[in-house]
Amino acid sequence: MENKKRGILERLNAGEVVVGDGGYVLQLERRGYVKAGHWTPEAAVEHPEAVRQLHREFLRAGANVLQTFTFYCSEDKLEISGNVTNITGAQINEAACDLAREVANEGDGLVAGGVSQTPCYLNSQNETEVKAIFKKQMDDFLKKDIDFFMAEFFSYVEEAVWAVEVLKTSGKPVGATLCISPEGDMSGVPPGECAVRLVKAGADIVGVNCHLDPLTCIRTVKLMKEGLEKAGLKAHLMIQPLGFHTPECNHSGYLSLPEFPFALEARAMTRWDVHKYAREAYNAGIRYIGGCCGFETYHIRAISEELAAERGFLPPASEKHGLWGAGLQMHTKPWVRARARREYWENLLPASGRPTCPSMAKPDDE
Amino acid sequence: MENKKRGILERLNAGEVVVGDGGYVLQLERRGYVKAGHWTPEAAVEHPEAVRQLHREFLRAGANVLQTFTFYCSEDKLEISGNVTNITGAQINEAACDLAREVANEGDGLVAGGVSQTPCYLNSQNETEVKAIFKKQMDDFLKKDIDFFMAEFFSYVEEAVWAVEVLKTSGKPVGATLCISPEGDMSGVPPGECAVRLVKAGADIVGVNCHLDPLTCIRTVKLMKEGLEKAGLKAHLMIQPLGFHTPECNHSGYLSLPEFPFALEARAMTRWDVHKYAREAYNAGIRYIGGCCGFETYHIRAISEELAAERGFLPPASEKHGLWGAGLQMHTKPWVRARARREYWENLLPASGRPTCPSMAKPDDE
Amino acid sequence: MENKKRGILERLNAGEVVVGDGGYVLQLERRGYVKAGHWTPEAAVEHPEAVRQLHREFLRAGANVLQTFTFYCSEDKLEISGNVTNITGAQINEAACDLAREVANEGDGLVAGGVSQTPCYLNSQNETEVKAIFKKQMDDFLKKDIDFFMAEFFSYVEEAVWAVEVLKTSGKPVGATLCISPEGDMSGVPPGECAVRLVKAGADIVGVNCHLDPLTCIRTVKLMKEGLEKAGLKAHLMIQPLGFHTPECNHSGYLSLPEFPFALEARAMTRWDVHKYAREAYNAGIRYIGGCCGFETYHIRAISEELAAERGFLPPASEKHGLWGAGLQMHTKPWVRARARREYWENLLPASGRPTCPSMAKPDDE
Amino acid sequence: MENKKRGILERLNAGEVVVGDGGYVLQLERRGYVKAGHWTPEAAVEHPEAVRQLHREFLRAGANVLQTFTFYCSEDKLEISGNVTNITGAQINEAACDLAREVANEGDGLVAGGVSQTPCYLNSQNETEVKAIFKKQMDDFLKKDIDFFMAEFFSYVEEAVWAVEVLKTSGKPVGATLCISPEGDMSGVPPGECAVRLVKAGADIVGVNCHLDPLTCIRTVKLMKEGLEKAGLKAHLMIQPLGFHTPECNHSGYLSLPEFPFALEARAMTRWDVHKYAREAYNAGIRYIGGCCGFETYHIRAISEELAAERGFLPPASEKHGLWGAGLQMHTKPWVRARARREYWENLLPASGRPTCPSMAKPDDE
Repeated sequence: MENKKRGILERLNAGEVVVGDGGYVLQLERRGYVKAGHWTPEAAVEHPEAVRQLHREFLRAGANVLQTFTFYCSEDKLEISGNVTNITGAQINEAACDLAREVANEGDGLVAGGVSQTPCYLNSQNETEVKAIFKKQMDDFLKKDIDFFMAEFFSYVEEAVWAVEVLKTSGKPVGATLCISPEGDMSGVPPGECAVRLVKAGADIVGVNCHLDPLTCIRTVKLMKEGLEKAGLKAHLMIQPLGFHTPECNHSGYLSLPEFPFALEARAMTRWDVHKYAREAYNAGIRYIGGCCGFETYHIRAISEELAAERGFLPPASEKHGLWGAGLQMHTKPWVRARARREYWENLLPASGRPTCPSMAKPDDE
Repeated sequence: MENKKRGILERLNAGEVVVGDGGYVLQLERRGYVKAGHWTPEAAVEHPEAVRQLHREFLRAGANVLQTFTFYCSEDKLEISGNVTNITGAQINEAACDLAREVANEGDGLVAGGVSQTPCYLNSQNETEVKAIFKKQMDDFLKKDIDFFMAEFFSYVEEAVWAVEVLKTSGKPVGATLCISPEGDMSGVPPGECAVRLVKAGADIVGVNCHLDPLTCIRTVKLMKEGLEKAGLKAHLMIQPLGFHTPECNHSGYLSLPEFPFALEARAMTRWDVHKYAREAYNAGIRYIGGCCGFETYHIRAISEELAAERGFLPPASEKHGLWGAGLQMHTKPWVRARARREYWENLLPASGRPTCPSMAKPDDE
Repeated sequence: MENKKRGILERLNAGEVVVGDGGYVLQLERRGYVKAGHWTPEAAVEHPEAVRQLHREFLRAGANVLQTFTFYCSEDKLEISGNVTNITGAQINEAACDLAREVANEGDGLVAGGVSQTPCYLNSQNETEVKAIFKKQMDDFLKKDIDFFMAEFFSYVEEAVWAVEVLKTSGKPVGATLCISPEGDMSGVPPGECAVRLVKAGADIVGVNCHLDPLTCIRTVKLMKEGLEKAGLKAHLMIQPLGFHTPECNHSGYLSLPEFPFALEARAMTRWDVHKYAREAYNAGIRYIGGCCGFETYHIRAISEELAAERGFLPPASEKHGLWGAGLQMHTKPWVRARARREYWENLLPASGRPTCPSMAKPDDE
Repeated sequence: MENKKRGILERLNAGEVVVGDGGYVLQLERRGYVKAGHWTPEAAVEHPEAVRQLHREFLRAGANVLQTFTFYCSEDKLEISGNVTNITGAQINEAACDLAREVANEGDGLVAGGVSQTPCYLNSQNETEVKAIFKKQMDDFLKKDIDFFMAEFFSYVEEAVWAVEVLKTSGKPVGATLCISPEGDMSGVPPGECAVRLVKAGADIVGVNCHLDPLTCIRTVKLMKEGLEKAGLKAHLMIQPLGFHTPECNHSGYLSLPEFPFALEARAMTRWDVHKYAREAYNAGIRYIGGCCGFETYHIRAISEELAAERGFLPPASEKHGLWGAGLQMHTKPWVRARARREYWENLLPASGRPTCPSMAKPDDE
């Protein structure tokens, strides 16, 4: 039955909005299933019910794509992490594919097999070795039923290009996102040039994920778009930014913030921040719009609600959400009832309740 | 097998720390299963897997008690809410008992059947009518296997007293918490007097929940304790505060904050804030320590970790958590490695990333 | 000619508003004439033109009283300070009287001879010695033409009482202000009791000055008023608070703030803050309304402008001030013209331009 | 005797640091002598003692140059302002020259005759008319004893060039500063090109003044320097920035901030901020370093103290200032004594005492 679903490129080529899912590792860390530091995804084997539930939430929130919970799931990374002993990367990859598939089939979801940056690249920059790692992970996925591939969270476009080159051999569509700032990748390759290299390597969809807040990521994707246009190339654009406000970040992104990763709460976006983001991303021509670390279920729902007219429907989870605060209309306190309107939430400047804290930090990479 | 577990009073009488669970309605709102405004718990029937998963997270985080997901589950409230049509309160109450029981039995958990304030009380103040509502809910619970009762989220001590009087007829232990400030309940009864009335009505455990932040709630419980001591009464003390910073709140608590309920993110406590809270609550003589709205899984784990020495063990979810940031010791960035220590997180003043926002709001009830 | 002026008590007994002057030592420190730390007033001899100019500004801003620039001008304090070698306290006191008199006579100004707390009191608490110091200073003043005495900046009501007892022997009216918080003086005597003791000692006017912000000082004066009423005593009330926002201060006042004394800028009140203060002080029944450290010329003008209707006139310096921003009506930028109205300035929440700074500090005396 | 003083170019050519004076109009507005809005300098005639005193403070603080208090003192501006009726521009200009001269001769001060942007330029852009206005003002100055000319506060380089061309006919040295951002003047001419045009017109000293904070102004002057170097031109560099933090400002500078001009207090720089500024300006190769609006006497002293080693002396006003807080060493409170050191003040992040205010505003020109 799932093979009747329209594929990712079919949808994007038709001009549809594809809503991505949110962040898995940070959310599952908070739920007690992922260890911060190495952030490996052994929960797919150890606690499948927790991963399944988060997939299901994203699907209910309107996500069209569920990414396999396989972040950092290369053998070299798993070994360094020390987080797993009796479980192989292949076991995790395969279990993760099954979980994503199971939930995707509960609705109109596609499954993207995800690969990410490797320690091997940082240590060796050896193309053969790095590609072998991606090949191994790809082969795990190909034993299962996935719809397309996503190479994500790359700091160096070179490594991402290698990933794309490997994944393209599968014959499936490939997306690729870099975790870079508008200044470019860690080697100084500007976003426009990064996009060109990825598309030339075969990527069907390019964009950015993680490391920086939505408005900054939109700027980076715009630069990618300009680079592609100048080069006469075409590709679909995607974005999966942080769900945190990081206005003061530089090149290294939120890793350099003093609050990373255990005190980011005060930076979390509200659902109303996400409405603005989704609109701006759409206006920038981006059609694959999701989130990364910090994007929780209700943030994904907010994307779906902001773009409901463009998509033609609201997601299942909106049954439990009055648009723009409408659920407050019957509240017993008059001042709470007064919040049941769009203008209120759009213009609110939320206080932090932390009078001895600053509003901006000094990043450690300054 | 579950009847071999030591009961709530057995534990408290022995001087043990009992870790409570966190907040259900706000968290399940964010996960897409509860509608803000009336906050009713029909998800126990509609989406049991979501409720089960949240119970399981709290248990893994070290909670000794799982409260049935029956907040606002009186027939009068359900009817006003308009959130349910084909489901009765009895169905929800029974399903919720089963879910809590199922998960509690996966570990050393007790099940508390929860009742809360009713619209009927606000409208009629009629003791007979209000007690009938509590009686009905109690009877639902008594068809199932629960360990004790919890009357929570009462703004008026009078209504809480009525609830306790009804629940005591079950023969099971009864706890009672008010959502009040240090100034007292909404009729102006001071916390010390509230505690006395509850204990005289038969409550075995008294305290506060919701509406205000941890440090404010501790002040209120201390006043309760003083009141009991002056009256020569004894009871166990409990606390389940907000997981938000609300220093500027008055009597009405966080309902009066402009950010309630859809823009509270910046006020969320970090796990390190929870460490301080758990220690202060313990030092105040409180032994039943949990959380309410805003308390997520990792906040409950932080209570368990702060009081691990007193309890003698770490919870299962600590397998995925390096104490005090220890998981960062191997990070590739030196500045992130430097954060793998207690002093760092204890002294950090987290920035909000919101330079155009204030740090304190003007409550609407000023 | 100056002896035709109506005296301070004549004015206050008639129910008139008396506008006090602002702070001398902090302002003259910034202008380069006073040394922070011991804050002694040798500028009256060394740089009379600077003192004269500041007197003149306050007079133009509407002050009815010019206080002699004799803060901390007891021989024991001067000696400890090391700030003066060839100048005696008597020389400073006499020069200061002449300066205040000269400028007061340029308008409708009265001269108040000021004495303040002594190191002797802190070291010895010896009534005879301390009173001898006040007697000596009083005798300096009595060689000159002053209208009344002001005993100010006392942390202990006992020392203030001694000062009042000495100054009353002059036959002139005596005012007395304490630099205390609503909690009372440094011995724990509450404000109401402080006021009673001062009035019983002979003070005609009592109140507070310095150390805390306007709204806090108003609370303290209200407590003094209540104390006097309960004791069946009568006295005029006065207030000369800081020109800084110090919401987090405790007993020790702004000395305990990390910003004292060289980084207080961000806390400075705007003229609009002063409007609110002047109105609240007036509404509290206070009729002698001025300022202390941080109160600059334009702050005193703001008091005069807020209470112009009550006094029946605007001060000379209002010739150079459009009320409520009226002077912006012809600005070339439309957005600046839009600020030429009362609502704008009354509701503005001014930003600090300091995104890495907090809004509240932790006082050192916590 | 004053003609024995070494001239401005003699000093700058010798590589000396020239300390400028601070801001007159904002400070004299606060002192009650200038009306905000049109900011005209009639006080030079109406209240010479006030202008004289401010000159004297700046001189004592170490200023080598006193600029005549002739801001906006062209006949067309005076007429529009409505601030003066019986006084001509010539009278003000001449009185202002006398005042600056008188005080400059009390020390090692030079007098700079200042001209600024005209309404005529904005209305007509007519070179002949605008130059006639500058010629008239120059002729007023040449009746008096001034050392050099300063054309300042120009938003359009074209008008500044015209001013320089006129002033150069006097045979005296000419400095020129623009109130521009790093983006360039209001016609979009970039800073480097602005500097080139000014130097080609004959300016001996070029730089920026007003409108933006010190660090932003340094960036602009650096761009000017680069422009001159690329063009193979030489000139001395000067800077007289705001004494306010304005990190969020765009092209229009602080006029666009909601706080302009009556609620800027919280943005005021501390003396320690000025130390950093003076050092950075010096390191950027700027040798004429002063301030504009918001720069008070103690800020100028801070420049002199930071650059005391380079200049070889401390200014007279440092007699009343312990370096880096040394004056606090004998304070009675131990926590205040602990502030008598450089590290303390250099690292302090001052709180605003305004918890309901944001740290950054949204400029009106966004």
